[in-house]
Amino acid sequence: MKPLQHTIEIRVRYNETDGQGRVHHAQYLNYFERGRVELLRSLGYSYRDVEAAGLMLVVSEMHVRYLGAAQFDDLLRLTTRVTRTRGTRIDHEYRIVLPQGDREVPIVEGASVVACIDRTGAVRPLPDYLRGDRR
Amino acid sequence: MKPLQHTIEIRVRYNETDGQGRVHHAQYLNYFERGRVELLRSLGYSYRDVEAAGLMLVVSEMHVRYLGAAQFDDLLRLTTRVTRTRGTRIDHEYRIVLPQGDREVPIVEGASVVACIDRTGAVRPLPDYLRGDRR
Amino acid sequence: MKPLQHTIEIRVRYNETDGQGRVHHAQYLNYFERGRVELLRSLGYSYRDVEAAGLMLVVSEMHVRYLGAAQFDDLLRLTTRVTRTRGTRIDHEYRIVLPQGDREVPIVEGASVVACIDRTGAVRPLPDYLRGDRR
Amino acid sequence: MKPLQHTIEIRVRYNETDGQGRVHHAQYLNYFERGRVELLRSLGYSYRDVEAAGLMLVVSEMHVRYLGAAQFDDLLRLTTRVTRTRGTRIDHEYRIVLPQGDREVPIVEGASVVACIDRTGAVRPLPDYLRGDRR
Repeated sequence: MKPLQHTIEIRVRYNETDGQGRVHHAQYLNYFERGRVELLRSLGYSYRDVEAAGLMLVVSEMHVRYLGAAQFDDLLRLTTRVTRTRGTRIDHEYRIVLPQGDREVPIVEGASVVACIDRTGAVRPLPDYLRGDRR
Repeated sequence: MKPLQHTIEIRVRYNETDGQGRVHHAQYLNYFERGRVELLRSLGYSYRDVEAAGLMLVVSEMHVRYLGAAQFDDLLRLTTRVTRTRGTRIDHEYRIVLPQGDREVPIVEGASVVACIDRTGAVRPLPDYLRGDRR
Repeated sequence: MKPLQHTIEIRVRYNETDGQGRVHHAQYLNYFERGRVELLRSLGYSYRDVEAAGLMLVVSEMHVRYLGAAQFDDLLRLTTRVTRTRGTRIDHEYRIVLPQGDREVPIVEGASVVACIDRTGAVRPLPDYLRGDRR
Repeated sequence: MKPLQHTIEIRVRYNETDGQGRVHHAQYLNYFERGRVELLRSLGYSYRDVEAAGLMLVVSEMHVRYLGAAQFDDLLRLTTRVTRTRGTRIDHEYRIVLPQGDREVPIVEGASVVACIDRTGAVRPLPDYLRGDRR
């Protein structure tokens, strides 16, 4: 069974930095979200189709550890990994590093729980293709 | 006829600044939007009700002149003014200043055209209460 | 000893919502930040002065539990509380609710660790006034 | 003389949409900024180096016309063009379209004036490499 993980590069935009000259700490949650979307795409699915089918994935828990500072124009490397799927929930882990020569400076680590709901807000079982069962 | 204008104060948040230590230039459009919402509220209406009634106000044109730099924690003063309403459109003007003692440092001036559409994207006449005809 | 906590109201702006019609989950970290700034102001200090003195407070850990959905124009109530100060760190807890009549709908709970560093990035002892020792 | 223009693709992120299910109108200014940075990079320069040299480029005027709605996950095409350079200023034009089959749906057009200042805020002549004189 192939591990469910996917790595993308993210170029830091100017508007994502703050007065400290660093990426604002809330911004990493947007990067994580992009990681989830691209992980899904790498499996052949689009999150747009999830919503078109009347389902929404909502973040119910988020944990972030900030390990280093990223700056404007840094080309970050984000790895998003599914660590567990349960009936209505998916757990992800995230790791963002800044490649420098042959080493990687750790920037941020995170973990989240995402829940599947419908338009009324009721919790719903994950569609099969979001379970990531691949044998 | 009372002029259709409204003034609010906006405290600059840290995440609204960028690596230059100033409010990011895109951020002022969010302030303008808040100005429009509070102007509407001052007239006794909520933009939430506009959308609940199946209409949306969308910005179709925006012009901004940046005159000075605002910083984290500045308490800005934004005046929003309706300059004209036509069948399906409202024109606004905006002025943001930073009060300092008994003078006002000009920060930004703007003007926008907002159009009224329905959920299908079709242009629709403004509801009467958005026309701001008050005699 | 007076408890170190402070409550503010936050009006949800349109740009803070996302395609799900809810406040985007990353946005709450910006609200928490505003809570920390206003808690500090309620004690007679400005975070701007902290940075002017060559120090920065940086978030080193953040944990958020999402309990309910907030929407555009909701008037949220955020309580920010210092739960512990150590040599170079401050722990905060956050609670955001939506008042409805005489009850409060829970929206988000959070906890963070903030560290004090100087301009070189070196960890520094908290200034006394940030320790919040008040007897 | 080669025209000074550059085209990039931008994938719309979820956090860039708003409650109308469209890209929030302020967001396009962040896309334009990315366009300017990548145009500069295509010429062999980094905006990070501009700031490292003690100069800043600040937006002094911005004009945007919104022509269509972009949605989450759209892969937009942004063309950024230098239309004029003067002593201390650069004029840009922007065009964002959504490619659909063999046609392009117009989304946004914009124009801006960017000024060169130093750390004291004083206006400064553009460095030669920002003039884009290429014969």
